[in-house]
Amino acid sequence: MTPRQMIFTALPGMPMIHAGDDLGQLILEGLAQAGIVLENGDVLILAQKIVSKAEGREVRLEQVRPSEEACSLAARSGKDPRLVELILRESRKILRQRGELIIVEHRLGFICANAGIDRSNVGAQETGGDARVLLLPEDPDASAARIRRRLKKASGAEIGVLIIDSHGRAWRRGTVGVCIGVAGFPALQDLRGRPDLFGRRLEITQVGLADEIAAGASALMGQADEGVPVIHLRGLPYPLRDASLAEILRPEKEDLFR
Amino acid sequence: MTPRQMIFTALPGMPMIHAGDDLGQLILEGLAQAGIVLENGDVLILAQKIVSKAEGREVRLEQVRPSEEACSLAARSGKDPRLVELILRESRKILRQRGELIIVEHRLGFICANAGIDRSNVGAQETGGDARVLLLPEDPDASAARIRRRLKKASGAEIGVLIIDSHGRAWRRGTVGVCIGVAGFPALQDLRGRPDLFGRRLEITQVGLADEIAAGASALMGQADEGVPVIHLRGLPYPLRDASLAEILRPEKEDLFR
Repeated sequence: MTPRQMIFTALPGMPMIHAGDDLGQLILEGLAQAGIVLENGDVLILAQKIVSKAEGREVRLEQVRPSEEACSLAARSGKDPRLVELILRESRKILRQRGELIIVEHRLGFICANAGIDRSNVGAQETGGDARVLLLPEDPDASAARIRRRLKKASGAEIGVLIIDSHGRAWRRGTVGVCIGVAGFPALQDLRGRPDLFGRRLEITQVGLADEIAAGASALMGQADEGVPVIHLRGLPYPLRDASLAEILRPEKEDLFR
Repeated sequence: MTPRQMIFTALPGMPMIHAGDDLGQLILEGLAQAGIVLENGDVLILAQKIVSKAEGREVRLEQVRPSEEACSLAARSGKDPRLVELILRESRKILRQRGELIIVEHRLGFICANAGIDRSNVGAQETGGDARVLLLPEDPDASAARIRRRLKKASGAEIGVLIIDSHGRAWRRGTVGVCIGVAGFPALQDLRGRPDLFGRRLEITQVGLADEIAAGASALMGQADEGVPVIHLRGLPYPLRDASLAEILRPEKEDLFR
């Protein structure tokens, strides 16, 4: 018997992404270069940055006029008031602020630092020193669904698509890859009712599968100069299904740590 | 150029584990059955349950005498007072309790529900209805180091070993695999000082690599009747080094969500 495997493959040859680029086409070319023919059950995991860039979510800081609230929070946190203005616009509320750290509930529903706004890997040099930052995609579930349709149309395969970012977390040091957008993938995998080895019902009933796969893929992506923004996964040991990110987000009233 | 891959393989043929079993030997047999010859840089990821069982960490509830504090918390949470007594003994403090949920700071330093004590997959039937529970290993870093030495002696390869469990988390639904013991693996991978694509210093500086790999491996392990407790990983894109779990645990004074 062949042992069960999950194989994460970093797609080679992904170019620098710009607004308007056809990500689906670039992914298809990367797959071809890796010698991968998509099959039913395969999953593609995309770094948030390339989705945001392709969707034109870069913002020039010089075009942002900070509010009074942003200026006040900027003073307390030592951040650029224009960046803080964008953080506020992208957030439902500020949960914590200490020093430079601003933890928010993002308008998309998850908790993260700086509303997921990124200054790294956005080319200021490219634009003659005009500082830019990158917002998260407007609607990452919809972005994932678009790319999924595109790849299905080209390949005929039923695949899942995850868009992931790196988040800090409570209690533990270091960022980990987490899912911020999903299409055709069981974000939360329900094990309720499945018996354990001794026939009892399992106490652990729901697995954050989208985040487990996001984390594994993130380890292969890296984040710096050698970063690879698209990972192909074969061998997920669960069937794919339709889902949205909402199912993995804990509502505030259920949350003991917000 | 061959694309970069991470390959997780579920070791076949692992038997039910009992106190005193030689886990290292069983892993070597599983590797042989999977046709894997260990190489430098490989990682083995072990479910906490088999380490705990091999180390005899099962406790018979009938032998536990609950304290007054345990009885009081048991009444509030609707749990067995003897189980609550064990949770208290294994914890530094209770962080939250709501309904059946008891979130603690474990004596090992991490935050988890029920002190990681598990009733699933511990065979009550095996023992004529004598209810047992399974505590976490006494010192998971030491357990990982012992198994690492054993495998290195047999194979000559420099490998990493992770012991993992499934934890709930703040803000998000579903459990994810996290590392609770580590040997020879960079628990926290420091990216500080590495330039990003445009030569700026990265803002995200530390990756919770042990937890990313734990999460990926956990997705392949599953947790129910088909559970596979040992995963082999080839292709980790970072060098191995000595480490302990402590480096990935956020001290209380740095933690905004405790």
